[in-house]
Amino acid sequence: MKLSFNNWVYSSFPVWVPAYPLEETIKRIAKIGYDGIEIGAAAPHAYPAYVSKDRRKAIRNVLQDNNLEVSSMLPAPGGGPGFNVASPLEEERKAAIEQYKQVAELCADLGGGTLLYVAGWQIYGTPRQQAWDWSREALSEIAKSVGAFGITVAIEPTPTDSNLVESCDDAIELMEQVGEGNVGLMFDTQHAYYRNEVPTDYVYRMGKNLRHLHISELGRGAPGSGKGDFVGLVAALKDIGYNGYLAMEIGFNRRDVEPDQIARQAYEYMKNLLK
Amino acid sequence: MKLSFNNWVYSSFPVWVPAYPLEETIKRIAKIGYDGIEIGAAAPHAYPAYVSKDRRKAIRNVLQDNNLEVSSMLPAPGGGPGFNVASPLEEERKAAIEQYKQVAELCADLGGGTLLYVAGWQIYGTPRQQAWDWSREALSEIAKSVGAFGITVAIEPTPTDSNLVESCDDAIELMEQVGEGNVGLMFDTQHAYYRNEVPTDYVYRMGKNLRHLHISELGRGAPGSGKGDFVGLVAALKDIGYNGYLAMEIGFNRRDVEPDQIARQAYEYMKNLLK
Amino acid sequence: MKLSFNNWVYSSFPVWVPAYPLEETIKRIAKIGYDGIEIGAAAPHAYPAYVSKDRRKAIRNVLQDNNLEVSSMLPAPGGGPGFNVASPLEEERKAAIEQYKQVAELCADLGGGTLLYVAGWQIYGTPRQQAWDWSREALSEIAKSVGAFGITVAIEPTPTDSNLVESCDDAIELMEQVGEGNVGLMFDTQHAYYRNEVPTDYVYRMGKNLRHLHISELGRGAPGSGKGDFVGLVAALKDIGYNGYLAMEIGFNRRDVEPDQIARQAYEYMKNLLK
Amino acid sequence: MKLSFNNWVYSSFPVWVPAYPLEETIKRIAKIGYDGIEIGAAAPHAYPAYVSKDRRKAIRNVLQDNNLEVSSMLPAPGGGPGFNVASPLEEERKAAIEQYKQVAELCADLGGGTLLYVAGWQIYGTPRQQAWDWSREALSEIAKSVGAFGITVAIEPTPTDSNLVESCDDAIELMEQVGEGNVGLMFDTQHAYYRNEVPTDYVYRMGKNLRHLHISELGRGAPGSGKGDFVGLVAALKDIGYNGYLAMEIGFNRRDVEPDQIARQAYEYMKNLLK
Repeated sequence: MKLSFNNWVYSSFPVWVPAYPLEETIKRIAKIGYDGIEIGAAAPHAYPAYVSKDRRKAIRNVLQDNNLEVSSMLPAPGGGPGFNVASPLEEERKAAIEQYKQVAELCADLGGGTLLYVAGWQIYGTPRQQAWDWSREALSEIAKSVGAFGITVAIEPTPTDSNLVESCDDAIELMEQVGEGNVGLMFDTQHAYYRNEVPTDYVYRMGKNLRHLHISELGRGAPGSGKGDFVGLVAALKDIGYNGYLAMEIGFNRRDVEPDQIARQAYEYMKNLLK
Repeated sequence: MKLSFNNWVYSSFPVWVPAYPLEETIKRIAKIGYDGIEIGAAAPHAYPAYVSKDRRKAIRNVLQDNNLEVSSMLPAPGGGPGFNVASPLEEERKAAIEQYKQVAELCADLGGGTLLYVAGWQIYGTPRQQAWDWSREALSEIAKSVGAFGITVAIEPTPTDSNLVESCDDAIELMEQVGEGNVGLMFDTQHAYYRNEVPTDYVYRMGKNLRHLHISELGRGAPGSGKGDFVGLVAALKDIGYNGYLAMEIGFNRRDVEPDQIARQAYEYMKNLLK
Repeated sequence: MKLSFNNWVYSSFPVWVPAYPLEETIKRIAKIGYDGIEIGAAAPHAYPAYVSKDRRKAIRNVLQDNNLEVSSMLPAPGGGPGFNVASPLEEERKAAIEQYKQVAELCADLGGGTLLYVAGWQIYGTPRQQAWDWSREALSEIAKSVGAFGITVAIEPTPTDSNLVESCDDAIELMEQVGEGNVGLMFDTQHAYYRNEVPTDYVYRMGKNLRHLHISELGRGAPGSGKGDFVGLVAALKDIGYNGYLAMEIGFNRRDVEPDQIARQAYEYMKNLLK
Repeated sequence: MKLSFNNWVYSSFPVWVPAYPLEETIKRIAKIGYDGIEIGAAAPHAYPAYVSKDRRKAIRNVLQDNNLEVSSMLPAPGGGPGFNVASPLEEERKAAIEQYKQVAELCADLGGGTLLYVAGWQIYGTPRQQAWDWSREALSEIAKSVGAFGITVAIEPTPTDSNLVESCDDAIELMEQVGEGNVGLMFDTQHAYYRNEVPTDYVYRMGKNLRHLHISELGRGAPGSGKGDFVGLVAALKDIGYNGYLAMEIGFNRRDVEPDQIARQAYEYMKNLLK
């Protein structure tokens, strides 16, 4: 298993400041000891439309110089353009699908292979089945398209924020309905804890389809600062032979966090568990 | 003085759910009694690129049928595209300026006349003066451009979230440097309270340049639910002869809020003060 | 009985901001309805060395134009110069006595007649009796000197902050030892509550020697916002025929207070009790 | 890097008691292990007008006997005389400048070389630019004058308490405008945290101009008792080659603190980090 750190807390998403350029963020995360960085596709780090081909090469060089992999990428849903794949607006659904494709291409350009999929949310007035169908269609199209870049898509249940793919089973159902070989699963301990569910249950249920994890205490604290059972989680992951990334997605939901500090605390705690 | 309600808590920005279509939101806000709606330019309500000319007409009809004005519009800064006018990325700055222009056009199409300006934020590594200059240049270009739509731009200090235009004096300084006739000022009581400043001081300092207000308790509660002095604020506004809008920008920063309830509480409290 | 408002919360003492010029403060307090203002002798309002004779006349005119009396004045102990009458430093004791005399002269120049006396505090290493004697000697000298200005001195027990004159009985003892006709007593409900004592006990114990009162909830909230028994206090004051000032000394100990708001709240609550 | 302890919590400023004589304070701080003492210029410790030349020699002897340096001195702004260099009162501004000069001379007499500069605060009615100009003029005059004593002046941003020099960038701008060789910068982690800013950003931004630091948790707790990242701060300071003082400015804002205890806790935590 490898450790990665999600860039939100070093970025302007969703909290505007503090924010560091991507190159600076790469150096800091690498210096702490992480194997990888998870890059959210938001400005100023990695909004695809703002990142020229030349700059992609330059970023890739910084990654290589610092011996850091791109563990994964994800879009930044919920801002002005929404990027809700289950929106009642056709314009928004199209833009969301296009954005996923662009994020996947950027991910490939930076040497990454995993794209996270947030299944969208149901707006008042849209029947659940309709929202689900739009999300399934979006995922089918995205999966087919990004296969060309060698990208795997991992569906993430997000009950803390949404109302559509809320559980381990929802994610499994969506994956099976889409039935594309490059679509797998992931989960975030924050979201499992939000529903008072047990992360190790997700590990065994997702099994060989588990492609990625987000690690966080409930409330987005660093693992080890709250009451999450990461000892048990690591044991379950070893048990199923998981050898992918554990990405810390923490601290980004409030302004009063020092990015380096929370990155370091999480690293030290998790590194010790993986010994 | 007139009362308006900001749409964030009925939208998907920044919290994804609950979210209501714009037409539904207009009907609810009008029914409570508000004179106007403040529309943030985020999906699914009003991201300019998603709102066709036909749909603009349809929305305008719904507004007229419900006797509700568009008091003001504002972009949704901080999401994937950032729209930070002080970003070190030239691509982002250009996109931000373009977005402001599009929001102004949409505002005019919906019958509104006031555009709020968030001056951006300083990314680590950008000297403050450079960030300030980029913001000033952006505002100059925006102000000149949107004058054609009859739009007034109101600069808002946002210390809760940013690090660039933090105070009443910063906003005044920016306005004076830009020196365009359609650039004025606004403030949000939340941001004044965040700095432990006194809103009535802002009223007297901004004086005849005051074009708009955001009303909120510290923490985004409805006015009257906390310790803000809205009695004194209304008295000061009467004292300077202010006759514009008071827009409630509340409740949107967390999921556990019922939009209709907080809109109603704010309306009842403020309506009574304006008698 | 008359109502007065202490200027600290409109001044820079001890919290630096917000701060309003004295003339502005006079206008605001008068507009709310108060009969008097209590002026603490701190910059920028009334540090004696900074207030020329011409400015004293100008301030007196503003007071008269606004129909506001100076109910009382007091020094600002505890800052750089300390002004601790019980200090082990002879330089400080002399400066403190001189400061009291200057405050008394300023008070008279502004039309006031009451000077509050804070008896100082004991520094580690000074025996209590020595500190007491220095304070008594200081008060004797001050009382004799300020009689020429027609000033009455009122001793205030200050247990919240000090360690010398801590109770009603300490103040009485000091008054009796000094034995000057222009030395009386006062108390502050905050300080009585700090010791879990009963303010009406102070009223009856101080009786005809009671010259002044400070009104505050424990913690410096406006009367009526906490659990203080101001109904009972007013009844006791009527019972002994007290016809002096009740000065609100509130809100000044923290930054997040709106001066006008707390002044208005206290006025409305107390005015109603005095009917 | 060396460790120093600020005397406020042993002094009468701003809380009157407990208070210890300066000589006693020196002995206690030295005994705990500190390399230096930061002396605030308030009674009874070090109000310049109260400290004769003979007493200065005596204090210097006590310092030498206890092997303790004077790391720095600072005035005590905000009390009766205010000493606000941006006051609208000319008398106060002059007194403030004179006080800075006297503190610098006292500092030199006690063997110290660093004077901290608090840039003042804006009173209602004073335009920000005017307040800024007064502060800049004051600093120019002070810097020129105290150069004769070999004193370096370090500008401190103080957003917790003020409204003028609020950020790292404000301090840099003021330093650059003054352009005197003996004017540098400092920061206090309390003030950075108050703005939810990251202290290591201040370290890299101030760089070679960084002359001094105040160490404190948000709320003035001892470092290590809260959530401040002092591990990261020390690493950044080593990274830029800082070899000056870290002065603990803690515990002084409330009465219920034991000075020796908080001094010892801070020392033990920081000493361990510096190993």
